[in-house]
Amino acid sequence: MEVFMHHCDRKLPALLSRTLFKALKRSHIKCAIHTSPLVPVPSKPTIPPPLVSRLFQPSNLREGQDGGDLTCRSQRLMLQTGLIHPSNPGCFYYLPVALRSMEKLVRLIDEEMHAIGGQKVDMPALCSAELWKKSGRWELMGKEMFRLLDRHNAEYCLGPTHEEAVTELFASQTTISYKKLPLLLYQVTRKFRDEQKPKFGLLRGREFYMKDMYSFDINEEAALHTYHSVCQSYGRIFDRLGLKWVQVQAATGNIGGTLSHEFQLPADIGEDQLLVCGNCGFSANIETMEPGQTECSQCKTGTLCESKGIEVGHTFYLGRKYSQAFKALFINASNVPAVAEMGCFGLGVTRILAASIEVMSSEDAICWPGLIAPYQVCVLPPKKGSKANEATQVAEELAQSLGNSLPNLRGEVVLDDRVQMTIGKRLKDAKILGYPYVVVVGQKALEDLPSFEVICQQSGETMFLSKDGLVDLLSKVETI
Amino acid sequence: MEVFMHHCDRKLPALLSRTLFKALKRSHIKCAIHTSPLVPVPSKPTIPPPLVSRLFQPSNLREGQDGGDLTCRSQRLMLQTGLIHPSNPGCFYYLPVALRSMEKLVRLIDEEMHAIGGQKVDMPALCSAELWKKSGRWELMGKEMFRLLDRHNAEYCLGPTHEEAVTELFASQTTISYKKLPLLLYQVTRKFRDEQKPKFGLLRGREFYMKDMYSFDINEEAALHTYHSVCQSYGRIFDRLGLKWVQVQAATGNIGGTLSHEFQLPADIGEDQLLVCGNCGFSANIETMEPGQTECSQCKTGTLCESKGIEVGHTFYLGRKYSQAFKALFINASNVPAVAEMGCFGLGVTRILAASIEVMSSEDAICWPGLIAPYQVCVLPPKKGSKANEATQVAEELAQSLGNSLPNLRGEVVLDDRVQMTIGKRLKDAKILGYPYVVVVGQKALEDLPSFEVICQQSGETMFLSKDGLVDLLSKVETI
Repeated sequence: MEVFMHHCDRKLPALLSRTLFKALKRSHIKCAIHTSPLVPVPSKPTIPPPLVSRLFQPSNLREGQDGGDLTCRSQRLMLQTGLIHPSNPGCFYYLPVALRSMEKLVRLIDEEMHAIGGQKVDMPALCSAELWKKSGRWELMGKEMFRLLDRHNAEYCLGPTHEEAVTELFASQTTISYKKLPLLLYQVTRKFRDEQKPKFGLLRGREFYMKDMYSFDINEEAALHTYHSVCQSYGRIFDRLGLKWVQVQAATGNIGGTLSHEFQLPADIGEDQLLVCGNCGFSANIETMEPGQTECSQCKTGTLCESKGIEVGHTFYLGRKYSQAFKALFINASNVPAVAEMGCFGLGVTRILAASIEVMSSEDAICWPGLIAPYQVCVLPPKKGSKANEATQVAEELAQSLGNSLPNLRGEVVLDDRVQMTIGKRLKDAKILGYPYVVVVGQKALEDLPSFEVICQQSGETMFLSKDGLVDLLSKVETI
Repeated sequence: MEVFMHHCDRKLPALLSRTLFKALKRSHIKCAIHTSPLVPVPSKPTIPPPLVSRLFQPSNLREGQDGGDLTCRSQRLMLQTGLIHPSNPGCFYYLPVALRSMEKLVRLIDEEMHAIGGQKVDMPALCSAELWKKSGRWELMGKEMFRLLDRHNAEYCLGPTHEEAVTELFASQTTISYKKLPLLLYQVTRKFRDEQKPKFGLLRGREFYMKDMYSFDINEEAALHTYHSVCQSYGRIFDRLGLKWVQVQAATGNIGGTLSHEFQLPADIGEDQLLVCGNCGFSANIETMEPGQTECSQCKTGTLCESKGIEVGHTFYLGRKYSQAFKALFINASNVPAVAEMGCFGLGVTRILAASIEVMSSEDAICWPGLIAPYQVCVLPPKKGSKANEATQVAEELAQSLGNSLPNLRGEVVLDDRVQMTIGKRLKDAKILGYPYVVVVGQKALEDLPSFEVICQQSGETMFLSKDGLVDLLSKVETI
């Protein structure tokens, strides 16, 4: 079987350019052209546990910085622990440990978007002025949009959002049947916004990752059904991250449409003012209310209390605002072209990352949403030259075996091999960095019945477990 | 155990903004704030097989287009089969089926980069003019670079490559020990190049995905060791894709440095002219040779034959060109700051995708590198109303069970539910789209010993297999 798996017949000269093929036929040495071995299929490389000493995580943990002009907890913690590094104003390098977390977040979002029928695409960042003039937003967006000319003096913007582009894509297809709808297209790409004052690190940047989804439906009823299905999906994402969230009535701003909600994480540094009814739970962005309003507009009896939130998601029912302008048509059940009803739905990917850290962490230690912690487990071998020195090898083998034998922990176990440092100092770092589980391998690991000290950092609990107990505990950790 | 897994103590009022918390305490209805259920941890959603009728893959297979101004096979096939859709000149929408393939390619690259110690980062697309002036490339790059001003009139370019940015990042760390080196940082991001004449679809675009890696070493010897290690890794990637490739001596262009190689896929439409020695296998880009040279400069006896290739990778040994200019220093073994030796290494991600299709496909049917085929298996139920109608349910169950029970096929099995079409028509589509395995569920699936027709499209072989035989065959398919 192996022979024809994954491999076209490599003997077909048609696949080689003719002259090169002739040259090779004449040659006795065949090394110039590399063809894949046919048997066996190359297997995936196995990787030893990542070593903390080699991670590019330039942290400034022990320099006693007071944070200076750093304006919020997540920004300070992310800079101090080497998760991000500042570049231009409002732009950051995402360093390896943060990127691992972000990739997990993207997998979580992918999973939930697929579950409601979302299909992933990727649209160009360069959007032509022509497209944005068609929707009337070229002028409207003002200075918030980065604009540029290409070598032929054609005008472009760097897409801050993609209603125009996706509607143009839909409209380019002239025979989309009603049977194909609802159609939900989404992407996770870098967006650009020329903020007047970028601040709070990843919370308000000029370049950021956003998940934006666009829906096309046959009529208003179907479109509202899709709208609620996406809102539920957003709720599941925040639930799976273990975040507290609130869905509030929102203004539609320059996106447009007739119905809109924001997903907010309650936080003192939040830039959004929210009003929450103490009686019925109705919640709204203050932008949508009358000035000075204190009575709940839903139950008419409760009092509205002010609060603050970080906006991490925003949903819009657009109706035909864009589909009309771009002639985004489908063929309805009567075989007649009809204008699609649209919705659009955004999740701030890098913002969720930072906002999670903002709301879950303490002043001096990161707490990650467990599911997207960059690494689930940190194994600490004893200090070099200490009494428990012989346990070093036990620790190395433990990290290797946990990271390979438990499917959920593949690649999730790091070894803090900085054995010139005391256990205490490394434990302090591990606390700041927020590994959900820290396993200390010391004297007790050398006893007849070896045991390991396990610190569950999210609960604060410490336990001594046998190898089996440890494996049992860690096999239940949910990863993505 | 479940109780404290992944969840901070949700009772801590510190995590809620104070006013909101008070409002909630007064409230009898708690629905405004959503907290995650503590037990059990929500599980991943299970997904039915994707249905061909619902895939957004707007194909133009039966419109008899002759391709018009489409200039190469991969561009024509990718447009006709709904893998990409044109946007601005040199910019494309990547549609869902193509994006699946690209994401697999990225996972393959990630795997091989990690295997040689690569650490993934993500650098801003906006690069300040200041940075590029420091290296002297702001002027040098000319019209190939997109340039823009922000709202404060600060000058930026859209990064076509990131030597400046990554060297600045390294230089910002003042205490990198020689023990941390070699340091290999890479990213897979969208790059921008304002091509005079974008052409050949994804092969020469203005926006494209590139994997760019940058290495930092303690001295030239170590840097050359890293250089060869990355070259080997590139070879493994092309091998695992089942591609024929050749590594040729190359010019360093505006990147600079003293040693450079290109990885080329031999192809008649290739834009690079190569010279290959029929005697010793030495290969070079014609740019690096004397005009009219026909004698091999390596073995001195062989004759050089001309050929053409598509450049899919490029490696550069940079020495200190950038590290000197940016003062990228590390602390050496004598505790003295020293200038790092650098290399840089590019793989054209979207270009590899298109080039694979270019060199492996026939004029009218896509052949994918098996490992990155968007879907491995297409299951065909019988035509509606045909004799074998009852086999429809068998087909649905088969697609569902293959896609869930075989770990390597999770999400890899589509069901071509367009049962108003004949098997023959759908088989024709399946051939054009290049699913590695097509399973036809017909009359024989209803017999006492059910069997299925399996077409291995890459070998052209057709077999009739029992369910067990089918599972056995498909369980060996390598996926990523």
